[in-house]
Amino acid sequence: MNGPRVDKWLWHHPHHDGSALYVSNPYPALGDRVDVYLRVPRATPVTAVLLRTYIDGEQSLNAGELDREDTCDRWYRGVVTMYNPVVNYRWLLQSGPAGYRWLNGTGVHDRDVTDAADFRLTTHPRPPAWAEDAILYQVFPDRFARSARADTRDTPRWAIPQHWDDPVVGRGPETPYQLYGGDLDGITEHLDHIQALGANTVYLTPVFPAQSNHRYDASSFDQVDPVLGGDEALARLTAAAHARGMRVMGDITTNHCGDAHEWFRTAITDETSEEAGFFLFHTHPTDYVAWFDYPSLPKFDHRNPELRRRLYEGPDSVVARWLTAPTGLDGWRIDVANMTGRHGTVDLNHKVATTVRHTMATAHPDALLIAEHSHDASADLLGDGWHGVMNYAAFTRPLWQWLTPEAPVEFTPGPFTVIPRLPGTAVAATMRDFAAAVPWRATATALNLVGSHDTARIADTLDDDEDTLHVAFGLLAAMPGIPMIYAGDEIGQHGTNGEDGRRPFPWNHDNLWNRDVLESVTTKITQRQSHQALRTGGLRWVSITDDALTFLRETQDGSVLVHATRAATDPLMLPAAYFGSHLTGLTGTADLVADGAALLLPGAGPRFSWWQLP
Amino acid sequence: MNGPRVDKWLWHHPHHDGSALYVSNPYPALGDRVDVYLRVPRATPVTAVLLRTYIDGEQSLNAGELDREDTCDRWYRGVVTMYNPVVNYRWLLQSGPAGYRWLNGTGVHDRDVTDAADFRLTTHPRPPAWAEDAILYQVFPDRFARSARADTRDTPRWAIPQHWDDPVVGRGPETPYQLYGGDLDGITEHLDHIQALGANTVYLTPVFPAQSNHRYDASSFDQVDPVLGGDEALARLTAAAHARGMRVMGDITTNHCGDAHEWFRTAITDETSEEAGFFLFHTHPTDYVAWFDYPSLPKFDHRNPELRRRLYEGPDSVVARWLTAPTGLDGWRIDVANMTGRHGTVDLNHKVATTVRHTMATAHPDALLIAEHSHDASADLLGDGWHGVMNYAAFTRPLWQWLTPEAPVEFTPGPFTVIPRLPGTAVAATMRDFAAAVPWRATATALNLVGSHDTARIADTLDDDEDTLHVAFGLLAAMPGIPMIYAGDEIGQHGTNGEDGRRPFPWNHDNLWNRDVLESVTTKITQRQSHQALRTGGLRWVSITDDALTFLRETQDGSVLVHATRAATDPLMLPAAYFGSHLTGLTGTADLVADGAALLLPGAGPRFSWWQLP
Repeated sequence: MNGPRVDKWLWHHPHHDGSALYVSNPYPALGDRVDVYLRVPRATPVTAVLLRTYIDGEQSLNAGELDREDTCDRWYRGVVTMYNPVVNYRWLLQSGPAGYRWLNGTGVHDRDVTDAADFRLTTHPRPPAWAEDAILYQVFPDRFARSARADTRDTPRWAIPQHWDDPVVGRGPETPYQLYGGDLDGITEHLDHIQALGANTVYLTPVFPAQSNHRYDASSFDQVDPVLGGDEALARLTAAAHARGMRVMGDITTNHCGDAHEWFRTAITDETSEEAGFFLFHTHPTDYVAWFDYPSLPKFDHRNPELRRRLYEGPDSVVARWLTAPTGLDGWRIDVANMTGRHGTVDLNHKVATTVRHTMATAHPDALLIAEHSHDASADLLGDGWHGVMNYAAFTRPLWQWLTPEAPVEFTPGPFTVIPRLPGTAVAATMRDFAAAVPWRATATALNLVGSHDTARIADTLDDDEDTLHVAFGLLAAMPGIPMIYAGDEIGQHGTNGEDGRRPFPWNHDNLWNRDVLESVTTKITQRQSHQALRTGGLRWVSITDDALTFLRETQDGSVLVHATRAATDPLMLPAAYFGSHLTGLTGTADLVADGAALLLPGAGPRFSWWQLP
Repeated sequence: MNGPRVDKWLWHHPHHDGSALYVSNPYPALGDRVDVYLRVPRATPVTAVLLRTYIDGEQSLNAGELDREDTCDRWYRGVVTMYNPVVNYRWLLQSGPAGYRWLNGTGVHDRDVTDAADFRLTTHPRPPAWAEDAILYQVFPDRFARSARADTRDTPRWAIPQHWDDPVVGRGPETPYQLYGGDLDGITEHLDHIQALGANTVYLTPVFPAQSNHRYDASSFDQVDPVLGGDEALARLTAAAHARGMRVMGDITTNHCGDAHEWFRTAITDETSEEAGFFLFHTHPTDYVAWFDYPSLPKFDHRNPELRRRLYEGPDSVVARWLTAPTGLDGWRIDVANMTGRHGTVDLNHKVATTVRHTMATAHPDALLIAEHSHDASADLLGDGWHGVMNYAAFTRPLWQWLTPEAPVEFTPGPFTVIPRLPGTAVAATMRDFAAAVPWRATATALNLVGSHDTARIADTLDDDEDTLHVAFGLLAAMPGIPMIYAGDEIGQHGTNGEDGRRPFPWNHDNLWNRDVLESVTTKITQRQSHQALRTGGLRWVSITDDALTFLRETQDGSVLVHATRAATDPLMLPAAYFGSHLTGLTGTADLVADGAALLLPGAGPRFSWWQLP
């Protein structure tokens, strides 16, 4: 540790992003002219600014105009005309007659670059407005809460009934069959808990009948599993949520169903049936394409029009029906969305996404569509299909890599990739790379998470270090994207892999609740809901070092300065001229007062701090 | 300048590329298993190697096996199974339990990366085998050579007739109308000159009738311009070329035609005509979509099936007919290929490309298809459309940026972008970025050029510095891709922009020939033709500094070491263990003999040197 460190990022880094501070109309229509703004620090020598747009396959370079100047920056304006449904653009900064640099989504480049990190504007309909303010709470129904009604229900034949306090087997033959009997009315009974966190949307993993506790192997899409309380219980849950101004999202697998599904039973029984065409048989009835070759998960053939009609095309489809009364879900998370419609020489993924989107827009114009996709989803996020993806790539993995202790942690039960501990520079670069590959709206509508039903519990990942957990939840609340809290994470629930983490919520064992974590999550989520800048502001980096990440979330009307450290490090000295001499700490964070012309951000760590700018 | 510099690149950089040294079958069919190899220097600590493939939208990580070891490297083997038409892959190198790095087309990354620079294998049919050995010679027919037959021909009404020695007006109202009367028989008469350079393929800019000397505003696609000698002259040229084992490529604009085109004349005369549907009228007949809004270049509407049939779909189309006897062209360069089929909400570009490709494959299975595209063409180069593009992005611009003097140079007559002088590190990074965005075969089939009819002459760009010109032509001959020589560049022809550079070839003015440049070009191209490694070898960087670029072109059977400097710099010391103690200089380059355990590459510059490895 040395004395205070002065970071000159803000003196030297021009900035643009897709937020309202930099884009006059983030949701343009075809033909619209959109003013876009480039912020150039006064200390950066720029003799001219040009805007490069890419229209009908050709670049166009037009001079930007100096729009205004303030104490710290010059603001240049350019115009993007929406000749195409999606228009790429980036900035060219000239310095002297022969020098130029490009600014794209990954920053400034002193050489020519490909279009991969161009900024993008899209004319496709915008995500629902409520997504800007959404905080999701993910519930795995069998493990969240059990209502009294559950006691009267029959146990399905595949299930191994468990008492609420029985240990979960994280990896074993009984793993998918342990049934704890959580139900939808249990969730309804605990909406207080969810709302108290600041969450406003319940996202349910599947509720269709199946042959497993996770229900990703649906045996029908036409009813809610009676074990969960059936259709009426879902209607009660959505009604109770809606009455509170909350929303409920469902989860559906369009890639496959379970081998007990009524369509698949018909398909294998009768080779001539309509349903036989829904699947990809090599040799009927025994040999067929299945997800990761699990015979219990036969893959759909989306070339079949009747399958599309039944599943997601039009008002009578499964996707449409559950969005309307009486059950009235407010959106879908699409399971295995990255693989759906893709097999060999057939790639109908984009068609599936746009059709699901269109069906939802008709049935429930305000519904949200989130895709499971753990990798580079940039080709699928131009705005006409999924609104956003579960943000493993641009948020979860880099966050884990920054905060994880030295020992490796298993990321998902899929192909093995260890999580190394990486410096903040690497982590921020990965975040910027993946975010730069998609339009800003897709980043703003991505589902950020620190853990899910498919990963180790964040408490395990971070070795139960409470200070580090505060940092993780702080970044969850502070970054662009929709924060998702996996039920139980807010009380420090444990689990060393996805299945092991699906432990019943210990409502009756207060001693198992980590109150410090609960307080931390609640405070941070509530702060996000109190500050527009944290929900819709731009993201401008202030400083990136191995052990500290510092950034601004900015709107016209207010900004928040975020400072996260993963370990004790040098304090960071910032110029008061850029921030004002007094910054108000958000709850739990002391005010920052200038010492002369400088603000000093503390080097203590792990610590999460944020301040409201005057 | 200091003492010798030791570059440890080869000690530390694992390597893979798409060449035969690293890929067992660069042209796999669907379902094929392809062995791919990773070369890891012994000094690089790697505990395990995994191959990540991306199939049906999901990643798969499989252990690579140690295949063999040699003095310098360990070679690991992985398997790519071609489940999809195009399969992305990259390598994961583990070091210890929690450390990993990715290797993709841009190099090694110590953090997660997007898929943009993944290696790619494609099952689409391969480019013609002759492309591997092709050297193109680009001829602008009006300015190359005038046969005696030309004297008898009528001057078209639009033309301003010129004598061969009259000055070219590079920018003015008469620029497109100066007609010097070069013709196809003139080219036939000078095949000796072309062949003596080592070139084996003549690429003609358009030969269809038009209202300009450049003929990119075709008035018909059904005949060769009588001013050039008509169909018979083209038949004579192709016959003469074929008799020498040479080939001839044509040039066609599928994006638009000229407003004197017979189809457009019918279209504006008769609103009900079939041809009226070939164009994009806002208001018939005066207001229509045109290339860059030039009314003389009306844009085609590729939604029209009859247009497609006439122009490029099927055996009766323009594209097919000129490839068959008697004219028998050996391929097409598609003008404005980046914009063709793209307008507003319509993007049929991929369909145009694949249809042209299919038509050509049927009419002349061995024909080559090159697209004009100055930008990031990665989305269009997966193997089912254009074989390759004119490589402005990955070769020409970075080359110019490295070699240009400090003063800015105009790149193209289009949107203004100056050419700054950039260090070798920036230039090599740009080359790698753009190459990494496409399959290796697209890089190998890209048309590399140091100048064209659309740019300033390379002699002007490089301020007539002969040493630097040698470096430019050396890199043209040494890099992956098809070298193209723009007629006149080999004698140091001048011109400060594209039009100004279209000066008649001074056959009768020996004093205007730069014999030093001619000797240099001839030697380098001939050397390329003598060394398989220079045509089909992989590309492995040895050292990249501001003023020196050093790389290997490698095959199983032989390798060439290339060392280019743009200025005097430190000598480069390389270990003899990696190269042998005696390297044979290719013509004009002295042998390299080890001094003890080290080879010393001279620091003199600008200089181009290459050696054959033992």
